[in-house]
Amino acid sequence: MSEILVVGSLAYDSIQTPSGRAERALGGSANYFSLAASLFAPVRVVGVVGEDYETKNIELLKSRKIDTSGMSIVKGKTFHWEGAYEGDMNEAITKKTELNVFEHFDPTLPEHYRDSEFVFLANISPDLQLKVLSQCKNPKFVGMDTMNFWISSKLNDLKAVLKKVDVVLINEGEAMMLTGAANGIEAAKKVVAMGPKALVVKRGEYGFALYTQDQGFFILPAFPIEKVIDPTGAGDTFAGGFFGYLASLGRVPTTQDLRTACIRGSILASFTIQDFSVNGLTQVSIGALETRTAQYNKVITV
Amino acid sequence: MSEILVVGSLAYDSIQTPSGRAERALGGSANYFSLAASLFAPVRVVGVVGEDYETKNIELLKSRKIDTSGMSIVKGKTFHWEGAYEGDMNEAITKKTELNVFEHFDPTLPEHYRDSEFVFLANISPDLQLKVLSQCKNPKFVGMDTMNFWISSKLNDLKAVLKKVDVVLINEGEAMMLTGAANGIEAAKKVVAMGPKALVVKRGEYGFALYTQDQGFFILPAFPIEKVIDPTGAGDTFAGGFFGYLASLGRVPTTQDLRTACIRGSILASFTIQDFSVNGLTQVSIGALETRTAQYNKVITV
Repeated sequence: MSEILVVGSLAYDSIQTPSGRAERALGGSANYFSLAASLFAPVRVVGVVGEDYETKNIELLKSRKIDTSGMSIVKGKTFHWEGAYEGDMNEAITKKTELNVFEHFDPTLPEHYRDSEFVFLANISPDLQLKVLSQCKNPKFVGMDTMNFWISSKLNDLKAVLKKVDVVLINEGEAMMLTGAANGIEAAKKVVAMGPKALVVKRGEYGFALYTQDQGFFILPAFPIEKVIDPTGAGDTFAGGFFGYLASLGRVPTTQDLRTACIRGSILASFTIQDFSVNGLTQVSIGALETRTAQYNKVITV
Repeated sequence: MSEILVVGSLAYDSIQTPSGRAERALGGSANYFSLAASLFAPVRVVGVVGEDYETKNIELLKSRKIDTSGMSIVKGKTFHWEGAYEGDMNEAITKKTELNVFEHFDPTLPEHYRDSEFVFLANISPDLQLKVLSQCKNPKFVGMDTMNFWISSKLNDLKAVLKKVDVVLINEGEAMMLTGAANGIEAAKKVVAMGPKALVVKRGEYGFALYTQDQGFFILPAFPIEKVIDPTGAGDTFAGGFFGYLASLGRVPTTQDLRTACIRGSILASFTIQDFSVNGLTQVSIGALETRTAQYNKVITV
């Protein structure tokens, strides 16, 4: 069992979906990731919030034994994102981004975080991802996420991060944008040629495609969900389940470990989308995850 | 081993894709279906062409032991479709539809076709689908396709066909349009509630979702293809491989047979999209299909 360090956003999200609306609900990549990963392994979170951040939201993480000593509470307001899903539930339309305290986020790791063996750099500016990585002592396994904004505005820094990580988890559109490829399959090979040993292409309702240098593609669908309430956080939940499972093994992951980890992440994400904010995720027990995994195995087996 | 009857279009397609252009190349659902199905079982085709239809295109079917005695050659021009793929390779943009002789297509089955045990009603007007079905004597297994045009213009006839078939094979957008569902998963259940025992939702590059009354969902991805040249005919190839495999078994299909048939159809379709027109499909041997199926099994297995 290894510890996981995650750096990312801690946010309040206002979200409109065909099922309704959530106003200033708990969100942010580091929250989804931590809650997901903590089902499997100890998590240490790095992030920044404003004075308006509610104590209960920190207590939620603590109740999952997540180490929050790397969270800074600073003067100002918490990062606030407003988005909507209209028709295509695989892609959010951003209505408003108020960076607030996140704008001047300068991650400094507490001393005891620096020997974390598993490190996940969630979607933040690539220069900050590099800064976090430079504070880590010889991690065993490093992963990252990114987004279209960084691909267009900080490509050189992003390329530097790509050379330093073991696995990249991004969505299909981002993989195509990063490589200029015409589809996710072509993109996967091209991303791996940029440095990482492995890439997970997140395909929303269609599941995932893992590509590894040594064994090529591993592709499976998502667990079928009839009623998607709010897809926000599905990708970060995937990454959290993926990393949590790998850290629970404690070893340097094999390709087979990565394949199993994808299924863990994918099934866990199917719970997140069944409710607004982190509500679907926080209710998942290991037992519920096992039950759904058994159902999933029937869905993908002749 | 049972005989398969297929009724559908025999056409010339002019297609623009990012890889290039094909001018008046062989197309039409009945051609793709017949060529695919004939790898596994004997096929009888019903359709109409104009005087401009080239003899070599009929000879191609005959060389695969496809019975073409139900093809009519009538005064006028063959159905011509012009389409383009721009960006999204999962959906064609129709530039021109010249129905020509297809406009007055009135399918009459040769006497020896009427006892066909497997019947596939490709994408033609639902009233013609009903007319073909009424000429069949007690078929063992009936399938159908349709399209957005019939869903909006002939919904009542379409609903009547849905009640008479065992399996529907349509793409995800069509399934959603037909049911008003927000995603393919919700749509699948709703289509099956309209009559058929099973539905195959074709998901383009993301594979397929089979839904059966008795065993629920069976979902798998498509075989990963790095360079898609022309997706035209992929869905009809899927249906042909699916039906061909089932007819080769000869029995009334079990749900497990349907699951295996989906993999057959899906793998076969992956060859069609690697070249323009039927060129990718006609080159596939059973050996090549087996080889790719073995590769596919590695892609979907941990």
